[in-house]
Amino acid sequence: MRAVDIIEKTRDQQELTQEEIAFLTTGYLHGEVPDYQMSAWLMAVYFKGLSTTNLMHLVQQMVASGDVLDLSSVHGVVVDKHSTGGVGDKTSLVVSPLVASCGVTIAKMSGRGLGHTGGTIDKLESIPGFQTELTTAQFIAALNHHHVAIVGQTKDLVALDKMLYALRDVTATVPSIPLIAASIMSKKIASGAGTILLDVKVGNGSFMEDLAQAQELATTMVQIGTAMGVETIAELTDMSQPLGQAVGNQLEVQEAMDTLQGVGPSDFTALCLHLATSIVAAAGIAQAKDVVLNAFHSNQAYERFCEFIHYQGGDLAAFAALPPAPVVYQVQAPVTGKVARFQTKDIGRAAMLLGAGRPTKDAVIDMAVGIKVLKKIGDAVQAGDPLFEVHANTARPDVDALLLAAVSIANDAVAPPLFYGVVR
Amino acid sequence: MRAVDIIEKTRDQQELTQEEIAFLTTGYLHGEVPDYQMSAWLMAVYFKGLSTTNLMHLVQQMVASGDVLDLSSVHGVVVDKHSTGGVGDKTSLVVSPLVASCGVTIAKMSGRGLGHTGGTIDKLESIPGFQTELTTAQFIAALNHHHVAIVGQTKDLVALDKMLYALRDVTATVPSIPLIAASIMSKKIASGAGTILLDVKVGNGSFMEDLAQAQELATTMVQIGTAMGVETIAELTDMSQPLGQAVGNQLEVQEAMDTLQGVGPSDFTALCLHLATSIVAAAGIAQAKDVVLNAFHSNQAYERFCEFIHYQGGDLAAFAALPPAPVVYQVQAPVTGKVARFQTKDIGRAAMLLGAGRPTKDAVIDMAVGIKVLKKIGDAVQAGDPLFEVHANTARPDVDALLLAAVSIANDAVAPPLFYGVVR
Repeated sequence: MRAVDIIEKTRDQQELTQEEIAFLTTGYLHGEVPDYQMSAWLMAVYFKGLSTTNLMHLVQQMVASGDVLDLSSVHGVVVDKHSTGGVGDKTSLVVSPLVASCGVTIAKMSGRGLGHTGGTIDKLESIPGFQTELTTAQFIAALNHHHVAIVGQTKDLVALDKMLYALRDVTATVPSIPLIAASIMSKKIASGAGTILLDVKVGNGSFMEDLAQAQELATTMVQIGTAMGVETIAELTDMSQPLGQAVGNQLEVQEAMDTLQGVGPSDFTALCLHLATSIVAAAGIAQAKDVVLNAFHSNQAYERFCEFIHYQGGDLAAFAALPPAPVVYQVQAPVTGKVARFQTKDIGRAAMLLGAGRPTKDAVIDMAVGIKVLKKIGDAVQAGDPLFEVHANTARPDVDALLLAAVSIANDAVAPPLFYGVVR
Repeated sequence: MRAVDIIEKTRDQQELTQEEIAFLTTGYLHGEVPDYQMSAWLMAVYFKGLSTTNLMHLVQQMVASGDVLDLSSVHGVVVDKHSTGGVGDKTSLVVSPLVASCGVTIAKMSGRGLGHTGGTIDKLESIPGFQTELTTAQFIAALNHHHVAIVGQTKDLVALDKMLYALRDVTATVPSIPLIAASIMSKKIASGAGTILLDVKVGNGSFMEDLAQAQELATTMVQIGTAMGVETIAELTDMSQPLGQAVGNQLEVQEAMDTLQGVGPSDFTALCLHLATSIVAAAGIAQAKDVVLNAFHSNQAYERFCEFIHYQGGDLAAFAALPPAPVVYQVQAPVTGKVARFQTKDIGRAAMLLGAGRPTKDAVIDMAVGIKVLKKIGDAVQAGDPLFEVHANTARPDVDALLLAAVSIANDAVAPPLFYGVVR
C-alpha cells in the first residue's frame, strides 16, 4: 500500500477502503507517512470531500489515536453537548445543570477558547476555586452525584486530531466541512457519551455564516455519529448577533446564573430551554418540554448549578464578591432607528481587545472585562440610548469605535429567528 | 508574507502576485517553505490551475533556480525541439540533422528515458563512441560547426523542477497540465533556445490520451513561451500507435538512418518532414516545405546526420557492425481482418520487459533488444501474417502474449490521422 495511491484516489473522488484510511492515518501518527503526503491528501479532501463511510473510518482512527473515556460505570444515558461556537455563547452553563435537574446525565468535556472570548472552561474558571481538571474516576463520581460535570479536555484525547489540525492550520485546509465534522465528532466520541447534542451556529458571529453550509456540517456530523452508533442530534441556531447580552467570562457566568434564576435575556433563555428539551427528549423522557420547564421554573436547575459548581470546588460566594472591571461605561447610539445588523465577530474582537479572549494560545484571560450588548436586532433605539456597556481596565476609545462600527441602525429591521431546524 | 495565505489564494483561484510566487518558490528552494506547504499548494494548483501570468512567474523562478545556457554566441536563430513522448519516437534523430541541413541551428538538450524505451540520449548512446556530455563551449562549437548538437541535460538545470517533480511524484500531483507545462517550458527556456517546437503527442501511447487535454497542454505551453518572449509552436501529432516500426534503442537509430536515406516507414517519414518544415518556417526561411524536401531528397540531411554523429565522437561503422539481438523471431496474427487498435503503451512495456527501457531510474538499458511493429492501424492482415518482430536475448512467450493482447483485429478499421493541428 502506498500513500500516493490513496491521495490519488481521494483526488479522483474514489472510495477508500478501511485499510487505506488506517494505513494513511496510523502511518502519519507514527511518522511513516510524511507531512507532505498528508497535506496533499487534506487538500484533496478539501476539494473532493470524503464519503460518510470513509469519514466514519477516519473518525474511528482519530478516536483510537488517543485515550477513550469509558463512561460505562455512569448510571443511565450519558449525553454530551457541543456548540460550534459564537459570541456570548454561555449555553452549556445553563443547559447542563438544567438537563441534569431533569435526571439526564450530561458529561461535558470542553476546550479552552482561542479568539474572541474564552471557552466554557475559561468561563467556569472565573469562579474562584473551580477545578476543571478531574481524573476519570472523579469525573465519573461527579456524574453519578449530580448528573453533571464539566471538565477540560485531556491532552491525550484524539492525538491525531491535534496533528491534523496543526497541519491544516498552515496548509489552508481548515475550512473543509468533512474535516471539521471529523475533528468535532472524534473528540465527542472519544469523550464517551452515548448521545450527542450539537448546537450548530449559523450567522456572521459563527464559523458557518451561511445556512446551507451549516446544514451540510450538521448533516455530516449526524451521519458520522449515526454510522458509529452514537445518537446524534444537531440543532441549527442563530448567531447573527451575540447571544444574550454578556460577552466576557465573568459577565457570562453571571448572565448564566441570572438565566437559571429566570431573569436572563429572553433570547438566551429561549435557546437554553429549546436545547435542554431536545436533550431530555433524546434521553427518552416523555413530555420533555414540560419536564424542562418545571425544572427551570421550580429553581431545581439553578440549585443543580450551585451543587455541581460546589462539587467541582467552585465558591459562588467568592464569585459574587469579585470586583467588577475598574471602568464600566456605556456607548450610545449615534442615530435614531432600529438595530438592523451586527458585525458579530467584531463584537467578539472588541471583547478580545479588552482582554476577555486569547489573541494567542498562551495569552492570559482577564476574567472581569467584557461587553454587554444592550440591544437586539429589531429593537428601536433613540440617538443617545445606550447600545453597549463596556467593562474595561481603562476607557478604550478604540474598542468603542469598533463596537459602533459593528452595529447598523436603519429605518426598519426584523429580528432573526432563533432556530433554523434540527438534523437527526 | 505567509505561505499559508498563498496556498489559500490558489485554493480559491485568486491571482497571485509575482512576489508571492517568488516567496513560495525561492522559500521552497532554500528550505524555508516546507514540503507540506508546497505539496498542499501543488494539490490546489491541480484543482484550480494557475493563470498564464502566474505560470510565467513560476517558470521564471524555475529557470532562475539553476544554470541557464547562454547560446548568444551561436550564429543565427537557435531552435529547440521537444516531444512529450511516445512509443518508438525517434523523431529528433531525423528532424535535427534535417533542419540543420536547411541552415537552421537546432540545439537539443535531452533527457534520459524512464519507462518503455530510452530517451533520445539513450538511443544515441547505442552508437559506439557517441558523447552526450559536452561542455557549454563544446556544445556551442558543435552548433556553429554543423547547426546541430544533441546533448544530455546538465544536472544543474532548473533545480526547482527536480525538487517539485520529486514532490509531485509522491503526492499525486503529476497529471496537472499547468505543472507539466511549467516543467517542460522551464527546461526548454533554461536551455537557451530562441524558438521552441513542441511535438505534443495525442493518443493511447502518450501521456495525453485525449485530444482536448493535449490541446490544453499545447496551448498552455505556447502561452508560457510567448509570455516569456520565446517563439513557441506546438504541433499536435498522433500517438495512437507506435511511430514507424522500431521500438528499442539500436533498432530506432537504424530506422532513423533508413528514414534519412529515404527508405523509412512512410508515417514516420511524413511526420519528420512535417515537423522539420514547421521549424524551418519558424526560423524565417521562405518556401520551407521545398527547402526541407530538397535537403531530404538530396541526401544532405543524412550527410548532416553522419557529420554531427562523427563530431560528437560516434562511430557509424562500428554501429553498423554491432551484432543484432541473439534471438529475432516473428509473432503472427491469430486471425484475419484489419488492425483496428493498439494498446500502444503495452507495446512500450513489452520493449521494456525485453530490456530496452528502464523500469527503475538506475536500470541499465540493453541497446540491441526491441520490437518491430510490422503493421499499422488500417492494414489488412491474414491469420499467420507476421505482426511483430521480437529482438530479444531469448524467446519470450510473456512478451509475445503481451504484444498479441495489445493488438485488436476487426472486420474494418480506418487509419488515424497523423496530425491534429498546430498551436502557436
